[in-house]
Amino acid sequence: MYQNRNLFEKYVTKDEIELMHEYTLKVLSEVGVIIESDIAVETFKKHGARVEGQKIFIDEDLLKKALSTAPKEFDIYSPSGKITLGESAPTICAGPVAPTTIQDFAKKIYRPANLKDVEEYYILQETSAVINMPTHACQNTDDLDKSGDDFHTPQVAMGLKYCQKPIYQGNTITPINYKKGSLVEANRKLIKLHQEFYDIWDKPVTMSNCCVLSPLAIGGEVVDTIIAAAEENQPVVIIACSMTNLTSPPSLAGAIVQDNANILAGIALAQLIKPRVGTVYGSVTSPTDMRTVQLATGSPEAVLMQLGLTAMGRYYNLPVRSGVSATTAIDLDFQCGAESMMTLITGMLGKTDFILNAAGSYGGYNLGSLEKFVLDEENIAYLRRLNEGLNITEKKLNFDLIKKTGPRGNYLSGRTPQDYRQEHYLSKVYVREGGSPIDIIEKNGDLVARARKIINERLESYQLPDVTTTQKKILNKYLPEGYKYEL
Amino acid sequence: MYQNRNLFEKYVTKDEIELMHEYTLKVLSEVGVIIESDIAVETFKKHGARVEGQKIFIDEDLLKKALSTAPKEFDIYSPSGKITLGESAPTICAGPVAPTTIQDFAKKIYRPANLKDVEEYYILQETSAVINMPTHACQNTDDLDKSGDDFHTPQVAMGLKYCQKPIYQGNTITPINYKKGSLVEANRKLIKLHQEFYDIWDKPVTMSNCCVLSPLAIGGEVVDTIIAAAEENQPVVIIACSMTNLTSPPSLAGAIVQDNANILAGIALAQLIKPRVGTVYGSVTSPTDMRTVQLATGSPEAVLMQLGLTAMGRYYNLPVRSGVSATTAIDLDFQCGAESMMTLITGMLGKTDFILNAAGSYGGYNLGSLEKFVLDEENIAYLRRLNEGLNITEKKLNFDLIKKTGPRGNYLSGRTPQDYRQEHYLSKVYVREGGSPIDIIEKNGDLVARARKIINERLESYQLPDVTTTQKKILNKYLPEGYKYEL
Repeated sequence: MYQNRNLFEKYVTKDEIELMHEYTLKVLSEVGVIIESDIAVETFKKHGARVEGQKIFIDEDLLKKALSTAPKEFDIYSPSGKITLGESAPTICAGPVAPTTIQDFAKKIYRPANLKDVEEYYILQETSAVINMPTHACQNTDDLDKSGDDFHTPQVAMGLKYCQKPIYQGNTITPINYKKGSLVEANRKLIKLHQEFYDIWDKPVTMSNCCVLSPLAIGGEVVDTIIAAAEENQPVVIIACSMTNLTSPPSLAGAIVQDNANILAGIALAQLIKPRVGTVYGSVTSPTDMRTVQLATGSPEAVLMQLGLTAMGRYYNLPVRSGVSATTAIDLDFQCGAESMMTLITGMLGKTDFILNAAGSYGGYNLGSLEKFVLDEENIAYLRRLNEGLNITEKKLNFDLIKKTGPRGNYLSGRTPQDYRQEHYLSKVYVREGGSPIDIIEKNGDLVARARKIINERLESYQLPDVTTTQKKILNKYLPEGYKYEL
Repeated sequence: MYQNRNLFEKYVTKDEIELMHEYTLKVLSEVGVIIESDIAVETFKKHGARVEGQKIFIDEDLLKKALSTAPKEFDIYSPSGKITLGESAPTICAGPVAPTTIQDFAKKIYRPANLKDVEEYYILQETSAVINMPTHACQNTDDLDKSGDDFHTPQVAMGLKYCQKPIYQGNTITPINYKKGSLVEANRKLIKLHQEFYDIWDKPVTMSNCCVLSPLAIGGEVVDTIIAAAEENQPVVIIACSMTNLTSPPSLAGAIVQDNANILAGIALAQLIKPRVGTVYGSVTSPTDMRTVQLATGSPEAVLMQLGLTAMGRYYNLPVRSGVSATTAIDLDFQCGAESMMTLITGMLGKTDFILNAAGSYGGYNLGSLEKFVLDEENIAYLRRLNEGLNITEKKLNFDLIKKTGPRGNYLSGRTPQDYRQEHYLSKVYVREGGSPIDIIEKNGDLVARARKIINERLESYQLPDVTTTQKKILNKYLPEGYKYEL
């Protein structure tokens, strides 16, 4: 079984969790949550919620009833097999949501993302040893044909072309890229395309990001996603990303309570629409830096609030999304590495069950590079190793070897021992050589060059998944020009 | 009281600690430890240890007796007041041990350290909000006059000139820089100089790093330091920095047991010489990367072994040194930030009581820059904030404010609330601005430039501590040319 070290237990006590739960009930029953959808409001009303316009009030009984059907764990299927989301499974790491600006190291510029970047992000995610779930990189890039009513599906089709792993939908459908009908329909179409392409009809085949509108609301587009996904029995992640002193209270504890109420309202909605559908409890809530009024995604307060919200998600026995590799750094510098590492701790050691943006984005989610993706992979590998922990058994204590070697002896032997090979993770990209820095750089390049070497190897050796002509035809209806299969 | 989250409890169970203790006793009584000092061997013999040449064997009774006098906490005094080392006190962070190569960003070169660097490192340590204990930066730089028998004391004198905080002795005295007598004498002279300059005679005024010689030995120079310090009632840190599969067994658990035996032998020696002298249990043991046969100071296995050894130190009720801001990176890049942050976790969240090299070194301890020092300070500030934790009380839940603001409301008000100011740490150096990366860099510089701005402000506003003419004369006997006080 995967080790869950429940790091949050070192930060939140049971009594504090009970206190936050109690106040969450007060928020849900006395303050209410605005749900921008008549269908959703009617659903709550039908189940006995008090309603004032679009504001719904949930009491303890209704909350209990709604949560009682939420699964503790669930699976998502794709051609590469299935992944499990839940407390007993390893953390599922997903790629970045649509960095709109790319740091281009070859040209030494920052530039808008294009379809080539989208393709390469998919390939890196598909070939990653640590990213389990690629994220739909739906950036609506400048070079995408936007003349039609629906330029969302072409981007989804690209993900399906390049990736056999199950794909995450990161807030991708909007009235901008899907103009021809309701977003409920758009989401249904998205799901159907996955089902058809995979030929998997009776199981979850994707998962959607549903970000609540803090404070205490769920916007219309997001409700449409929840409704469509739930009706099609596809799991949803209800996620809060509020900002202290702006869209949540100035205190970290206050932000946790408010977000908890908001997230639970979304989960309740999904469960009332479709009992037993997969619902993930999520938070990437972060503090506001009031000097710049920016979301400080890589800050210690972000880690603290996410640990607090992880504790609440576990309290309700829900799969939890939290943690991220986040930073407001704008280069692959010391800050970028430090903040990305610190914010991964919540998820990788916490542990949580799902981490979005686990690799490949920075600059407060707006900036991306494949180099950052590869370096984040290394941080994930480091923390996976850390989470594996020590293996302390009589045999592993190596007493006989210690005795044989003796004081001032040497353990170096002809063959590298099994204990060493089993217990040491050898970094693929980080500098581990000794000696003169100049010599090291001359021989193997700087860190960005080392990352680029790995990227190029993966891009060059990547081969498109082997799919049938029928499958190719399904996607060719949507794939952008230049990315269609040759038939 | 300072919060100790005992992170190691998530990694090592009580049974595992007992098992490692049991095998440590076997190592101490069956394998033995070489102590390269006749005085030390005689001391053990006098207390009933079995002895074979320089190899001593410690049984359970002798170990218990020696440890029974070791204090759980102790204080160190200097003109700036006192610091406390122990479980109930905040982690004491100390500066770097002598980086011999400096990354010079102004000149874009790596170059040998010189006395000007030594001076500036002292000033940054003295003016640091997070470094409590400067470390003697005894690099024997090229521009130091080495014609005399003792060019160690001139370097010590520089530390005393620039710093009022208590100063750490990091393996500074060697037969190279002190040629005229025994190292026991040299250490006594060092301590006397502190006592005389401070005019503090009856209390600990410094602390010495005593690194054991793995496997299972303590070298002559280090024994001399232990003997002199203990006799003068000055605390010592007995520290292991073994390398898996080279100077310690190939398994992490084996390395912990071997190091534990070695450290305990050093602590026993100090306590047998001077019962109740301050003795710190220390480890920065790290894995060997067998591809390069280098110490992987910034690796996850280093964190795991240090967590395991922290658990053992706590088991014996000793103050613990472990954790570090360590990396094998050779630039202030992503790896540098990520590894430095990860390896600080053991100490800052662990917590341990003392962290050496908490700021300012990289490249496997060989490389340094003031810029790294300032960036490490920021990581320490981040982890301090993280360790403070959440403040979850009814009042802090901000329920009335949540109710008043309501769904879709806005928390932004005219004044920044007290809750915000109390709970948010605002980074002094890390990028927190939004918008175009190019605009941000044009306005405030890149991260290295931001760090340099802080360095220059501190160097420019620094003023030498106000000392008496008598004190000046004490140091002028030793200070290098160009660094003497004007009288």
